[in-house]
Amino acid sequence: MKLEMICTGEEVLAGQIVDTNAAWFANLMMENGIEVQRRVTVGDRLDDLIAVFQERSLHADVILVNGGLGPTSDDMSAEAMAKAKGEPLVLQDAWVERLHDWFTRNGREMPKSNLKQAMIPASAVMVDNPVGTACGFRVKLNRAWLFFTPGVPFEFKQMVEEQFLPFVQQSFGKTDNTALSKLLTLGRGESSLADELEAMSLPDGITLGYRSFMPYIEIKVFARGDSAISALGKVTEQIRRQLGNVVVASGKTSLEEEIHARLYNSGMSLSVAESCTGGLITSQLVAFPGSSSYLHQGLVTYSNESKVRVLGVSPQTLDDYGAVSIPTVEEMARGARALLDSDYALATSGIAGPDGGSEEKPVGTVAIALATRGGVYSQMIKLPRRSRDLVRKISAAVAYDMLRRELNGEAVVVDYHSIGRFPK
Amino acid sequence: MKLEMICTGEEVLAGQIVDTNAAWFANLMMENGIEVQRRVTVGDRLDDLIAVFQERSLHADVILVNGGLGPTSDDMSAEAMAKAKGEPLVLQDAWVERLHDWFTRNGREMPKSNLKQAMIPASAVMVDNPVGTACGFRVKLNRAWLFFTPGVPFEFKQMVEEQFLPFVQQSFGKTDNTALSKLLTLGRGESSLADELEAMSLPDGITLGYRSFMPYIEIKVFARGDSAISALGKVTEQIRRQLGNVVVASGKTSLEEEIHARLYNSGMSLSVAESCTGGLITSQLVAFPGSSSYLHQGLVTYSNESKVRVLGVSPQTLDDYGAVSIPTVEEMARGARALLDSDYALATSGIAGPDGGSEEKPVGTVAIALATRGGVYSQMIKLPRRSRDLVRKISAAVAYDMLRRELNGEAVVVDYHSIGRFPK
Repeated sequence: MKLEMICTGEEVLAGQIVDTNAAWFANLMMENGIEVQRRVTVGDRLDDLIAVFQERSLHADVILVNGGLGPTSDDMSAEAMAKAKGEPLVLQDAWVERLHDWFTRNGREMPKSNLKQAMIPASAVMVDNPVGTACGFRVKLNRAWLFFTPGVPFEFKQMVEEQFLPFVQQSFGKTDNTALSKLLTLGRGESSLADELEAMSLPDGITLGYRSFMPYIEIKVFARGDSAISALGKVTEQIRRQLGNVVVASGKTSLEEEIHARLYNSGMSLSVAESCTGGLITSQLVAFPGSSSYLHQGLVTYSNESKVRVLGVSPQTLDDYGAVSIPTVEEMARGARALLDSDYALATSGIAGPDGGSEEKPVGTVAIALATRGGVYSQMIKLPRRSRDLVRKISAAVAYDMLRRELNGEAVVVDYHSIGRFPK
Repeated sequence: MKLEMICTGEEVLAGQIVDTNAAWFANLMMENGIEVQRRVTVGDRLDDLIAVFQERSLHADVILVNGGLGPTSDDMSAEAMAKAKGEPLVLQDAWVERLHDWFTRNGREMPKSNLKQAMIPASAVMVDNPVGTACGFRVKLNRAWLFFTPGVPFEFKQMVEEQFLPFVQQSFGKTDNTALSKLLTLGRGESSLADELEAMSLPDGITLGYRSFMPYIEIKVFARGDSAISALGKVTEQIRRQLGNVVVASGKTSLEEEIHARLYNSGMSLSVAESCTGGLITSQLVAFPGSSSYLHQGLVTYSNESKVRVLGVSPQTLDDYGAVSIPTVEEMARGARALLDSDYALATSGIAGPDGGSEEKPVGTVAIALATRGGVYSQMIKLPRRSRDLVRKISAAVAYDMLRRELNGEAVVVDYHSIGRFPK
């Protein structure tokens, strides 16, 4: 079965929004053993839409079309599909009724423009949208089924999960005999990882892939066929041992996900005191439902006065060592932990750039501390030539990893391959 | 001139990363009056790459190819291009020397696999990459110039800005006679905005577009041709008046950008106390370099104990009214402002969901306050049926807008079209 995706919308093509629907869709398909073979993104021009529907329908078995089902004049997927097939649009009375119900339920009058959302090509089969005003539909053209979905992410996702995926599985059967494991690494470049791993001898049917999504590089271990699948666990463990400290998680896409999973409903509590990471650690954790079960507070003490006033850092320490220093960040962590007697506290203080560096402490110098009931661990890392955004992301990741290692009973401060450290 | 983009990489096609390069590129082109007409995304399969290079080279004048120039075995853009053109890959001695220099400068030995990055098709023209190990190149095939760029975002961006854009402008001349203005709206749906605006009579050559990027909808006012361009300012102002409170900025893509621009180096200071928004407000502001000039602190007082201990909220208030209430959020804002005597403080407390709601205060109930030297403004909004993420984003946006309106000397608490409010 050959699956392609067509993404429509000037705002996607013109780059004003990033196409998260496409990434989500491809990822879901992969998890179900289905490869998306090509993705074409086109704007809101009727002729372009007609051309791409006709062209790709000659190559693919199934085409997921996303976007262009809205009520405004630049939404023209249904019209383009009708023209591509040479048939009229037909108003679906059943959907008009649903629209009226939907607006009534939401206490609003239906804008006239929404009627357009009930018009689909004559030969199309309507596809229900239980959470929005755009009805989906599917149409056969040439070799392909074209399956039309709305651009609004939560409407799109529900339609794909509840209707598109079952349709594909029923029509084309289950697919490949493959399995996948993933290792998350921090602090080592892709080519350096690849050099080391490509020297390993891997069983037949096992291949490696890399994805770089800052500050992590994920190593994907693919297995195809029964014997490779049964070797997958052992090979993954072998890679993890080979790489050592830089492997920071498996099967997770970020360290915040790992930390949330470890602390959620664990009875343990965490406070966070951030300076250069500026709320990044806190907001990454709060993004997970249930983080209130362990997160006491996140204190972004951006100014020195705030470090003194809120965290109880001594003005003398700030004078003697500066805000970006081991003594200051240790006092920040101790102070944040003590406020509510949390089990753990993380603290960061650094120079994220692009300005503010000195010869002694250049941009990219970040002090990080972890306070526990037993004591404080700290380190000062060097991240030269990284953007402000990346300095903040790496610093947050190193902080999470210190806590992760402490929770594992491992050494808290370790070397990562290409993250420099100031000697203590 | 017909411009297309080809994005390569299994990790982009398979959705494990979101293609931010594509969005950035298309946006930059649009700002330079150049439309990207189509974007094709393919994985790391040699045959697919060869096919798409050959096929699209028949339709486009210029094709920007992104990705697949790395050192690992799944990087195969150069090889595919050489095969598509039927010519060998040739090692570029000049680039090998650059690679050795690059690694020496970074104090590392060059991994052997990087040599591959100096191989480009025989007829290709090398394109410099001053910040990375992959050299770019361009090749003519059929109608098109194919321009190959690395996937690493900052290498890609520098190559596009310094080399691709000048190449296109020199080869094809400047383009269209167009202009664009943008209005940012909050709290009103796309179809409802469109219904109201499509009833307005607009001058010839002016068209409207909408982009929805939660929690905002941006209205784009396009002008094509001299008379439309000269009317653009007046039309934009007319739309702003027509829509009232829901227009919250112009020419900005978010309210945090607006607030940062207003407070940066203004001499004014801000503290933030967040509960349900969980560091989102703080980290959105800290993302801008220079935010330390006004941001005193951001206190994420997630637990009640932290509200009491850090912000000085009275335990009695929490008992009497609960954490999500006007009295509590007002005390949070007052407390955050008083700590360092900031000019302003914003505070949020709400139920982001998916759990934690009650009949009286369902999920999506959020109390927001702004404290100034003169007093406190507050409101409690209702955001039913929104995701956790969206509740947090809308709440942060409303908080910013309260501050923006205060800075303008306007009423701080107003109705937005479809954001409900509890009566005071």
